[in-house]
Amino acid sequence: MTVPAVISLVTLGVRDVTAATRFYQALGFELSPGSVDGAVSFFRTSGARLGLFGQDDLAADAQAEARTSDGFRGVSVSINVESPSAVDAALSAAAAAGATIAKPAHTAEWGGYSGYFADPDGHLWEVAHNPFWPLGRDGLPQLP
Amino acid sequence: MTVPAVISLVTLGVRDVTAATRFYQALGFELSPGSVDGAVSFFRTSGARLGLFGQDDLAADAQAEARTSDGFRGVSVSINVESPSAVDAALSAAAAAGATIAKPAHTAEWGGYSGYFADPDGHLWEVAHNPFWPLGRDGLPQLP
Repeated sequence: MTVPAVISLVTLGVRDVTAATRFYQALGFELSPGSVDGAVSFFRTSGARLGLFGQDDLAADAQAEARTSDGFRGVSVSINVESPSAVDAALSAAAAAGATIAKPAHTAEWGGYSGYFADPDGHLWEVAHNPFWPLGRDGLPQLP
Repeated sequence: MTVPAVISLVTLGVRDVTAATRFYQALGFELSPGSVDGAVSFFRTSGARLGLFGQDDLAADAQAEARTSDGFRGVSVSINVESPSAVDAALSAAAAAGATIAKPAHTAEWGGYSGYFADPDGHLWEVAHNPFWPLGRDGLPQLP
C-alpha cells in the first residue's frame, strides 16, 4: 500500500485572495475559470497547479491552528528554467509585477544558478537553472 | 515579460533529512540517486518534484530568517486521486508509514472528498478527489 507519488497542487494561504490573484496574473499565470472571485483561485501552471486561498480558510480546511506563522515557513516552490539568462529574465519579470527579490540570482555552490522572489504574502519562489536536471518535453526537470 | 507558469519542485524544510527521507520512502516515493545522503533528497514525483532540505539550510539558501516558524505554515501540498476510495487508501497508507492524520477524509462542501495528513515535520498534505477536475493521462488534474 503506497501513497501516489504526485504533487498535483500547491495551495498558498494569502491575506487577500483578490490582491494575490492580481499579483500572479501580473506574473503571466493563467487563471482558471473554475476560480471563485475573491474566495479561491486556481492557475493553470504546469507541474503542480497553483491555488490561492485565504490563509484562515486554508487553516480551517486543514483543521490547523488558525493563526498563520510569521517568518520563514519552511517551504519553497521552484520554477526551473532552461538557462541562467532565463533565471534573470524571470526574476526581472517578477520584480516588475511587484515581487520582492529575496535573493538576487547567483551561481550556487551546487553548480546551478538561482535566485528567490517573495510574493506579497511572503511565500518564497526559487527560480533556478540546474544544469544537471535537463528539462523534458513537458518543461519539467528530469531527475537523475 | 512573464514568469514561466510552472511549479517544478516543492522543497520542504525538515529537521532531519535522513529521517524525513525514510518517511517519504515509506510512503512509496522513489528517491532520486541525485540525492546527497543526509543533506538533500529529491523524489521522482510527478507534477512537481519533491525536495527535502534541512530547514536551516533552506532558510539560508533563501536568505530568510533562520528560525522556522512553528504552527501553521500557510501552505499545503495536494495529491489528487481518481476516486474517494483512492483518498481513503492513500490516507491509510500514509498513516501506516507514520504520518499523522490531520483531518480524516470527508465529503467537502465544494463537492469533492478529501483529508489531510502531516509529515513528521508538520508539513500538510491534502489527499483529494475532485470530481470537477478529471485526471489527465499524466495523472494530473485538468482544470476548467
